[in-house]
Amino acid sequence: MEIRRFKLKITSYERIPVLDHGYVELIESWGSDERIIEAARMSTDKGFLGWGPKYVCDKCRVEGVEGLETCIEGSCLGTVKRVEGDEKLLKYLYEHKHATPFEMAGAVFEIQAPIMVFREWHRHRTQSYSELSARYTSLPNVNYVPTVERLMLNSKTNKQAGTIKGADELTEEGARAYIWDLECEYKDQEEFYQRSLKMGVPKELARVHIGVGRYSRMRAQANLRNWLAFLTLRMAPDAQWEIRQYANIVGEQLSKLYPRTWELFSSGRSK
Amino acid sequence: MEIRRFKLKITSYERIPVLDHGYVELIESWGSDERIIEAARMSTDKGFLGWGPKYVCDKCRVEGVEGLETCIEGSCLGTVKRVEGDEKLLKYLYEHKHATPFEMAGAVFEIQAPIMVFREWHRHRTQSYSELSARYTSLPNVNYVPTVERLMLNSKTNKQAGTIKGADELTEEGARAYIWDLECEYKDQEEFYQRSLKMGVPKELARVHIGVGRYSRMRAQANLRNWLAFLTLRMAPDAQWEIRQYANIVGEQLSKLYPRTWELFSSGRSK
Amino acid sequence: MEIRRFKLKITSYERIPVLDHGYVELIESWGSDERIIEAARMSTDKGFLGWGPKYVCDKCRVEGVEGLETCIEGSCLGTVKRVEGDEKLLKYLYEHKHATPFEMAGAVFEIQAPIMVFREWHRHRTQSYSELSARYTSLPNVNYVPTVERLMLNSKTNKQAGTIKGADELTEEGARAYIWDLECEYKDQEEFYQRSLKMGVPKELARVHIGVGRYSRMRAQANLRNWLAFLTLRMAPDAQWEIRQYANIVGEQLSKLYPRTWELFSSGRSK
Amino acid sequence: MEIRRFKLKITSYERIPVLDHGYVELIESWGSDERIIEAARMSTDKGFLGWGPKYVCDKCRVEGVEGLETCIEGSCLGTVKRVEGDEKLLKYLYEHKHATPFEMAGAVFEIQAPIMVFREWHRHRTQSYSELSARYTSLPNVNYVPTVERLMLNSKTNKQAGTIKGADELTEEGARAYIWDLECEYKDQEEFYQRSLKMGVPKELARVHIGVGRYSRMRAQANLRNWLAFLTLRMAPDAQWEIRQYANIVGEQLSKLYPRTWELFSSGRSK
Ligand SMILES: Cc1cc2nc3c(=O)[nH]c(=O)nc-3n(C[C@H](O)[C@H](O)[C@H](O)COP(=O)(O)OP(=O)(O)OC[C@H]3O[C@@H](n4cnc5c(N)ncnc54)[C@H](O)[C@@H]3O)c2cc1C
Ligand SMILES: Cc1cc2nc3c(=O)[nH]c(=O)nc-3n(C[C@H](O)[C@H](O)[C@H](O)COP(=O)(O)OP(=O)(O)OC[C@H]3O[C@@H](n4cnc5c(N)ncnc54)[C@H](O)[C@@H]3O)c2cc1C
Ligand SMILES: Cc1cc2nc3c(=O)[nH]c(=O)nc-3n(C[C@H](O)[C@H](O)[C@H](O)COP(=O)(O)OP(=O)(O)OC[C@H]3O[C@@H](n4cnc5c(N)ncnc54)[C@H](O)[C@@H]3O)c2cc1C
Ligand SMILES: Cc1cc2nc3c(=O)[nH]c(=O)nc-3n(C[C@H](O)[C@H](O)[C@H](O)COP(=O)(O)OP(=O)(O)OC[C@H]3O[C@@H](n4cnc5c(N)ncnc54)[C@H](O)[C@@H]3O)c2cc1C
Repeated sequence: MEIRRFKLKITSYERIPVLDHGYVELIESWGSDERIIEAARMSTDKGFLGWGPKYVCDKCRVEGVEGLETCIEGSCLGTVKRVEGDEKLLKYLYEHKHATPFEMAGAVFEIQAPIMVFREWHRHRTQSYSELSARYTSLPNVNYVPTVERLMLNSKTNKQAGTIKGADELTEEGARAYIWDLECEYKDQEEFYQRSLKMGVPKELARVHIGVGRYSRMRAQANLRNWLAFLTLRMAPDAQWEIRQYANIVGEQLSKLYPRTWELFSSGRSK
Repeated sequence: MEIRRFKLKITSYERIPVLDHGYVELIESWGSDERIIEAARMSTDKGFLGWGPKYVCDKCRVEGVEGLETCIEGSCLGTVKRVEGDEKLLKYLYEHKHATPFEMAGAVFEIQAPIMVFREWHRHRTQSYSELSARYTSLPNVNYVPTVERLMLNSKTNKQAGTIKGADELTEEGARAYIWDLECEYKDQEEFYQRSLKMGVPKELARVHIGVGRYSRMRAQANLRNWLAFLTLRMAPDAQWEIRQYANIVGEQLSKLYPRTWELFSSGRSK
Repeated sequence: MEIRRFKLKITSYERIPVLDHGYVELIESWGSDERIIEAARMSTDKGFLGWGPKYVCDKCRVEGVEGLETCIEGSCLGTVKRVEGDEKLLKYLYEHKHATPFEMAGAVFEIQAPIMVFREWHRHRTQSYSELSARYTSLPNVNYVPTVERLMLNSKTNKQAGTIKGADELTEEGARAYIWDLECEYKDQEEFYQRSLKMGVPKELARVHIGVGRYSRMRAQANLRNWLAFLTLRMAPDAQWEIRQYANIVGEQLSKLYPRTWELFSSGRSK
Repeated sequence: MEIRRFKLKITSYERIPVLDHGYVELIESWGSDERIIEAARMSTDKGFLGWGPKYVCDKCRVEGVEGLETCIEGSCLGTVKRVEGDEKLLKYLYEHKHATPFEMAGAVFEIQAPIMVFREWHRHRTQSYSELSARYTSLPNVNYVPTVERLMLNSKTNKQAGTIKGADELTEEGARAYIWDLECEYKDQEEFYQRSLKMGVPKELARVHIGVGRYSRMRAQANLRNWLAFLTLRMAPDAQWEIRQYANIVGEQLSKLYPRTWELFSSGRSK
């Protein structure tokens, strides 16, 4: 007896497409810019005090509005002064590399990407992973085929990752031919895979010829400090273009979850 | 100009008292028993299927109730069978030490405890910490005084941590005298501390004589896998009684957040 | 101008062959069983005292030999007693999971293995890695072909990793046919790879169709505690046969470097 | 029967004194600047090629000497050219934060320092520690007393760590008086400690009043990447003066073990 079961996800965010068949989906997040302040304030035993700037009367301490110079609270007439809020502390923490409070927030993503992207990704040891296993399931037949534009991208920042010595210059026509051949190659791989599986080659072996362009899927979890460290390396121009597309989407998601931290991160990067 | 500011916490859970002046407060948690299943199912590309057991008709597949043997859905008359739910997978993961899915959940606590407890705690490197700094704030005058009962506890499981060779046997009277003297000692320490601070000794030095029984405060974050590893070591009988009290409370909180994982953890421990 | 340069290794250990084209080579090690004792003794402020058992006269304290009951030192005639050495402490540490002293030793290996083995290996986040990059170098044409015996191995401990549902039973003939086809597939892959590289496809893309059976090379470093944790998972019967072959060799090397720790590890495993 | 045993260390380096009673002792190291190159070269499959610069004839490729422009090897008369050595790669790695090869070297130190220094030190989670335990041994009576000069140091870079608001300015006389009182306080603490131990208070409790200026002892192990990260934070002017003294000595030792890496580290810091 087989019970039909439906794949269920407790919450379901949007799957943001990346490359030809990949995606990034936010599964869960925790913490916030405010929580980071709270954690940092442990050191002086205060909590989150509020974002600023605020305009506060130096006499009656009532909060006023920007532009007003004299307090209009009753007959107070005190001077309204601009008071910095906790964005100042956040900036201080970030710029002085007091990084531990940024470990008090984090996020889990689900990612579908070519194996070769995962090979790079898994080298980041401060994340937690849970991936589809080619030992236990036969791999879905989804493969990465770069576009002509991608193939023609002249890797100027990273010559090493470019063509071999003595190679011809790639033409658009050449790129199209390559894509055609690649698709055939993938098709052959899949046929051989299915054939081998059927003749009784165990799953864990039948996959040995499957290319690193085959898609896999995983959950990845990290705290915010380590997501930013990941993005620093993987949004950089010398990172491979493919993983950069994933990093960019992860970054976009984080920018919505932790907008003030993100601002500091991205203005730091643009310098 | 000084703006009066109020200490604010975004959410405020209960502070559960520990020892004479300490507490444990849950600040935030993420993930769930269901999420752990979801993450584990990445490997075979399925999601969370539901806890069981369920009683399902093997013909029309409508879910029935326990005890019923024949399906009463219309004129179906199929046989109702018991189907295991995802608790089976959770158990398998836990018992076979497939621990990474348990990294897809976690919790942040705020803890007030004697420095000596933090000394033990901070050796767990898979947590994130943010602590009150005696360099930046003068330490609140809160000190740990063990009770007579605690002093009389005969550490049977851990002789090493007991008395020195050739010591007298501690009497209740002795314990009471010790407490009295300890309180005096703490009082002297605080007086000297305040005096030194006032005469201009920098905070970071004025504290050198402050005892490791002085309370400090921190936030601590870890994923569930590592919280359980912490509890395995710190709820054990050879852990110092003081940190065990904290571990017990952390455990109670986790048991509410992740009841099914907790059951596996605690039945594993009781064996 | 190109200077001919020779690949040089500071020290050169033996490359122990694994699978058809892989190897494990010990590059460097540090620490020892004695150092582990030394580190553990920090807690009681003593050093390494010596392995036992020793036979010592309880009167003149001169060391005797096994079997002798009465001291023959001059006219001493004291009783010779058996005294345990530091193997007792080592055992205690190991069995009570006091694992940090085992972090005071470690080893670096160079490993050549199929990408699919590295995919499993790199999930161990407490190691340090430095790997050949397919972005920067064109991959050597070395591929893993399982033997007939390997293909026929009936994975009894791990059914999940076995054949798909409805597969035929693999015959020896079938296995031989599979090997033949696999070799052809690898040959095609290499031809397409070389062709693509020559026509100007950048190295980092020309590799997408290369199978996970292609060999790569890396250095891997870990401390002894984490090597043992790695071996616990990867020498186990449910680990894939291929990575187990590597784990076994790593284990053999460690057994020579840290014989007493190894004994504890392996007798723990055999229980 | 008690066998007299001698504390033994397998190798014994110099104990370099720090503060009034502390020390740093190198216990063991592994790896080298050359090994770092070797590891990095895994990515392009070459080994360590040699430090430069070298002066090599572009015709016969024999190595010449600096200053010579024409090759004097037989009748060669080729042009001698300057060839960069592997210091170029080391610099590239360091400056582009390719940090993993620096994990292929490391060192173990033994450190005696006040508890308050260890409190800061242990927050670095990428080290391995083994420390004297106040639960298992009664603490040696060694306490940190800052000098007058240290007390008078005007912490200009880190006002927060300075005096409390409204404090008097510390005079030399004041500093001397403080030292006197501190020594008395330590003496009292020790007396109370011994008294409590003798009356049967367990070691793990009798220590609660012992100040964080009491010395403890540990072994600490890290790889070179993480030692440098530690020094970046702990040799910086905003680190507490006491831990900086330790960091400086650790740095000196590393500079001898890994001179080329150290040069890059220290010239990076001085910018
Ligand atoms: C038979 C078998 C089947 C497997 N099947 C799958 C599968 O289907 N899918 C899949 O994705 N994986 C699978 N794995 C991989 C497995 O989930 C682990 O990733 C891998 O075994 C490494 O184990 P580890 O996490 O204990 O090791 P390490 O990563 O070396 O961790 C060792 C210790 O360090 C701590 N640690 C290190 N880094 C962190 C961190 N960033 N956060 C928290 N704690 C940390 C942990 O507490 C842990 O105790 C399988 C492994 C085996 C042996
Ligand atoms: C001047 C100064 C003032 C300080 N003031 C305070 C204070 O007031 N309060 C306070 O609590 N602390 C304070 N600290 C301590 C500080 O917050 C850090 O805990 C400490 O400096 C260790 O730094 P680290 O986290 O970079 O090092 P490590 O713990 O060695 O981490 C190194 C790297 O490993 C990774 N890593 C290791 N373990 C984990 C993990 N479990 N999770 C995620 N990533 C991990 C991180 O990505 C990091 O990049 C202060 C430190 C300095 C230097
Ligand atoms: C452009 C580019 C090119 C690359 N080329 C190559 C290449 O040719 N070959 C190659 O092998 N790799 C290459 N890499 C991978 C690179 O070496 C790192 O493995 C990867 O970027 C992860 O970086 P990380 O170690 O900083 O991250 P993490 O592993 O996440 O580490 C983050 C922090 O945690 C600490 N940490 C975590 N775990 C440990 C541990 N076990 N021991 C010590 N410290 C730890 C470290 O201090 C570090 O500060 C490349 C990366 C990039 C971006
Ligand atoms: C009863 C008891 C008595 C003790 N007595 C002493 C004592 O006398 N002296 C003393 O010094 N300590 C003592 N300790 C502390 C003990 O040695 C550990 O430091 C502490 O329990 C933390 O355990 P852990 O290392 O497993 O945890 P974590 O540091 O949280 O490590 C968890 C996992 O992460 C991995 N990991 C994390 N960081 C690293 C890293 N940098 N390198 C390698 N692997 C890493 C490890 O593989 C480990 O599996 C005692 C602890 C207990 C419970």
